[in-house]
Amino acid sequence: MTLHTSPQPAGSLDSKQIRLRLEERGQSLPTPWQVPSTPGSSIPASLVRRVSNRLYVSGHIPTDADGNVTGPYGKVGDDVDLATAQQAAVRTVLSLIASVEKAVGDLGVVEAWCSLHCMVNSAAGFTDFPAVFNPASQLLVDAFGPDAGAHARVAVGVAGLPWDLPVEIEAEVQLRT
Amino acid sequence: MTLHTSPQPAGSLDSKQIRLRLEERGQSLPTPWQVPSTPGSSIPASLVRRVSNRLYVSGHIPTDADGNVTGPYGKVGDDVDLATAQQAAVRTVLSLIASVEKAVGDLGVVEAWCSLHCMVNSAAGFTDFPAVFNPASQLLVDAFGPDAGAHARVAVGVAGLPWDLPVEIEAEVQLRT
Amino acid sequence: MTLHTSPQPAGSLDSKQIRLRLEERGQSLPTPWQVPSTPGSSIPASLVRRVSNRLYVSGHIPTDADGNVTGPYGKVGDDVDLATAQQAAVRTVLSLIASVEKAVGDLGVVEAWCSLHCMVNSAAGFTDFPAVFNPASQLLVDAFGPDAGAHARVAVGVAGLPWDLPVEIEAEVQLRT
Repeated sequence: MTLHTSPQPAGSLDSKQIRLRLEERGQSLPTPWQVPSTPGSSIPASLVRRVSNRLYVSGHIPTDADGNVTGPYGKVGDDVDLATAQQAAVRTVLSLIASVEKAVGDLGVVEAWCSLHCMVNSAAGFTDFPAVFNPASQLLVDAFGPDAGAHARVAVGVAGLPWDLPVEIEAEVQLRT
Repeated sequence: MTLHTSPQPAGSLDSKQIRLRLEERGQSLPTPWQVPSTPGSSIPASLVRRVSNRLYVSGHIPTDADGNVTGPYGKVGDDVDLATAQQAAVRTVLSLIASVEKAVGDLGVVEAWCSLHCMVNSAAGFTDFPAVFNPASQLLVDAFGPDAGAHARVAVGVAGLPWDLPVEIEAEVQLRT
Repeated sequence: MTLHTSPQPAGSLDSKQIRLRLEERGQSLPTPWQVPSTPGSSIPASLVRRVSNRLYVSGHIPTDADGNVTGPYGKVGDDVDLATAQQAAVRTVLSLIASVEKAVGDLGVVEAWCSLHCMVNSAAGFTDFPAVFNPASQLLVDAFGPDAGAHARVAVGVAGLPWDLPVEIEAEVQLRT
């Protein structure tokens, strides 16, 4: 693997290397999510809020390669099965990464993914919330490496998500100083 | 507008200016929320927890002008309609601001609202969570200006909120050093 | 009380002192929670994620003295009554403390518990979420003292928790520099 031929401080993979690692796993970053700015659908909050060397990343939802919100819609454990929910969670993490890259320029400035707050739009009786996000968590660790990609996590069921999407993830990210 | 006649670093509106901006929008800060201290109803957590220059603001709920918890009560999309929930969310943000002011003395020390974690006590089938909090988010940006008032946000539906209130908001705030 | 005979900066109780304070209240730290590492049940997230002097502590659940996840299972207000849920929340906070101690070595490095994000697996109609976590919050303040143990808190009802457990708590902790 040629990713490490040039000397790099531990954990400081740059955007090009991270995109290669995603590609090796059959994944790629989408166009960053564009929240509609039309009256009635605009949102007066920031997708990524930078405060000194910390990023507060708003709740993200699954998007397609063009950055448009995409289904499936509905409750996990009922309308949406586990495997489909896992794919939606992976797409959501890819959208998070794309938003962070857009905010900071190059992903090499990411020192650490601090935490992911993961929510499932869950049907009554569904309880396997960690499983929904395990492939997404693993992809984040694989893409950024264990130093930068490690993260604390919460994975719970909520009563509803915007537009009846099956999953949503919010994150906090530390940047190098 | 006379708000900016005295030189101010960008984003450093003080309490007086922020109260004027709220007044121009038909709003005002309530008396800060007083959690009951009677046995059985006291809460051994801090409404605002300061750790160096960071404020962790506990989940706030709608209060009236005197800082007392106020209805309407019930689930948004069923007992409480969207417009009423939006008003409750605005009252909740005003209560958050009042608690922060009480904790820090003058709101001019607020460098940034980092994030709002917004929760709706939602009826089955209701999914328009962002809309519930958009007027509240907009008011925060308008009151503090775009530099300090910008914030990341999550807006989701939960299964229940204390006292069956329709909305709750938790926040993180960065102070100037 | 002999806890304070040796001079200590305010709030800097060490692990031994904190364990004594817990013991005085009839409590003790469990063996730290070990997430299974068998295929299918491993979790590619960190129980405690340290980023400079901040700990992001993943959602914790009730464990027994040996660090194994333990029931009761089910929804608070239906399968699980308030008193039982309070005991589960206390066990969860003890598990949080044990995980933090494992991560940092000695609890004397904890400068502040910043926030607890408390979730109840709630039955329809149950709304007394703060009461579920009040004994747990009080124990944290009692064990670490008011300087380090104070914390902001959110306590809400969610639609479901992993393995149908009744409560889950996530935390953020600041360490001394």
